[in-house]
Amino acid sequence: MPAKSPVIVDLKFIPEEVEAALAGAFPGREVIDLADPAHQERDLSGIDYAVVWKSAPDLFSRAPDLKVVFSGGAGVDHVLTLPGLPDVPLVRFVDRTLTTRMSEWVMMQCLLHLRQHRAYEALAKKHEWRDLSQPEAADVTVGIMGMGVLGQDAARKLAAMGFKVIGWSRSKRVIEGVETYDAAGLDAFLGRTDFLVGLLPLTPDTRGIFNAALFAKLSRNGPFGAPVFINAGRGGSQVEADILECLDSGVLGGASLDVFEREPLSPESRFWDMPNVYVTPHVAASSDVRALFVHVEHQIARFESGLPLEHVVDKVAGY
Amino acid sequence: MPAKSPVIVDLKFIPEEVEAALAGAFPGREVIDLADPAHQERDLSGIDYAVVWKSAPDLFSRAPDLKVVFSGGAGVDHVLTLPGLPDVPLVRFVDRTLTTRMSEWVMMQCLLHLRQHRAYEALAKKHEWRDLSQPEAADVTVGIMGMGVLGQDAARKLAAMGFKVIGWSRSKRVIEGVETYDAAGLDAFLGRTDFLVGLLPLTPDTRGIFNAALFAKLSRNGPFGAPVFINAGRGGSQVEADILECLDSGVLGGASLDVFEREPLSPESRFWDMPNVYVTPHVAASSDVRALFVHVEHQIARFESGLPLEHVVDKVAGY
Repeated sequence: MPAKSPVIVDLKFIPEEVEAALAGAFPGREVIDLADPAHQERDLSGIDYAVVWKSAPDLFSRAPDLKVVFSGGAGVDHVLTLPGLPDVPLVRFVDRTLTTRMSEWVMMQCLLHLRQHRAYEALAKKHEWRDLSQPEAADVTVGIMGMGVLGQDAARKLAAMGFKVIGWSRSKRVIEGVETYDAAGLDAFLGRTDFLVGLLPLTPDTRGIFNAALFAKLSRNGPFGAPVFINAGRGGSQVEADILECLDSGVLGGASLDVFEREPLSPESRFWDMPNVYVTPHVAASSDVRALFVHVEHQIARFESGLPLEHVVDKVAGY
Repeated sequence: MPAKSPVIVDLKFIPEEVEAALAGAFPGREVIDLADPAHQERDLSGIDYAVVWKSAPDLFSRAPDLKVVFSGGAGVDHVLTLPGLPDVPLVRFVDRTLTTRMSEWVMMQCLLHLRQHRAYEALAKKHEWRDLSQPEAADVTVGIMGMGVLGQDAARKLAAMGFKVIGWSRSKRVIEGVETYDAAGLDAFLGRTDFLVGLLPLTPDTRGIFNAALFAKLSRNGPFGAPVFINAGRGGSQVEADILECLDSGVLGGASLDVFEREPLSPESRFWDMPNVYVTPHVAASSDVRALFVHVEHQIARFESGLPLEHVVDKVAGY
């Protein structure tokens, strides 16, 4: 029996977390962690597997014999845009913890806007005890764009908290308890949406979809008047110049952004300091690295026993 | 048929909200809103009903003939401590919206602490893009003290978000999916609790229950080490000097306080500016005034048709 192929690990995560998760991972198999300077000149030919998140552009030329590429997250745009992507299966990370973490972030942002957190923080800063007129969740319609695994989980939990929830996806999905719209229903969907949650993959169709023309179609009949934009999908789906303009003009009343056109977000960005804008550094659903490696081990075991891989990406659709 | 008894309304809420909610409320019945200066000298004898929240101490001497007193909120300690409380039914406000609003606040506070919101806000203030090691909800045990209507609703929703949830109440309650403890199990309950949520009524038994001795028994094995105290029950249940000391010494890692020993909280209080402390001005579950009046109308209709009143308080137990 030939030795098991090593696994290349190239994850731009917190290095200590990757290192800790690697202890005991991939038993019986060499792990080549490219974060280790010792591997800088390592010959990667003949290696079957790579687990990647925001790899250097030369990865695929250095490792020309990969049989499967695993994305370190739910999104794969960071892989699809790498030069020389081989024509082999690309597997994305689908995991309970990734899904529930994303729902934590989405729920928290919806509640921060609902419960006027920034306004109360401003009062607290002045040591001022004063209550604000407070709508409840049932007064707000959250519209989610992107109704895959993440969107469906967020929808279910937001509905359980009392929010009205509607969903949009390119092709209509039937989801119990959530009214859904497809491509043709976009304007009707937007017209009802007070808090817009973006959970879309980045594809040619979704690039720049969150722009001024779209924001102008959102509901202004919610309890706060102006709508709120919450994005934890991909920064490439949003036009940041338009978001800034809409926040300035009042077309948008607030925003929560975990993703940006360019990451890391520039220290010069105005988003950091805007009054009703929450910025987080692409951490809404950080992959649990241990869970990622368990998932990759499981898929490699399937692959090596001749079973079909799961969660294989359609590279044309982009997700 | 004799004229219907007027209703005294004495609610220290946002005056405009009370006024707006009164339009159309109590059809066929005079409403005496004590916020209106015209009623300052009004004779209140012979009146059957009062809806009250933090009344002036002379209310019951001015209105000696009340047949039912309605609390404007879920708690009734503000009524029980008024001088001259007549020996008539005291009805508390139980309402879907009050319950769901409380769960919104509790969920938001648990997520703020879980997702290290203050740490991310501090990074954002420095325009610094950096991710922190992030536990998930399943890593945190939320212990709720007070498992009435509010505690049960919060427990169910926190569990659905992925938190581990345990509950404590004076007498043991059986609640599906939530491990519960009674008075004798307090230490065991505290030893497992990472985030302690207080939803207790204020009674002689609960006065000062949240003190340094109790905080010292909380778990220190959670993902953040030090436990967090979250209180939306009553300020009288907490010893604020102890909370401050425990926050200073690290016995507590953070707090969210909606209630205080003295309200409004003094502008001199240190709580306003502490690094991992969230202060809100007793608004966790602001009563929806319209819903309150619908509830009172409904109970008066029952009372006048000879049906038993619902949600009558046990004045000895205090809730």
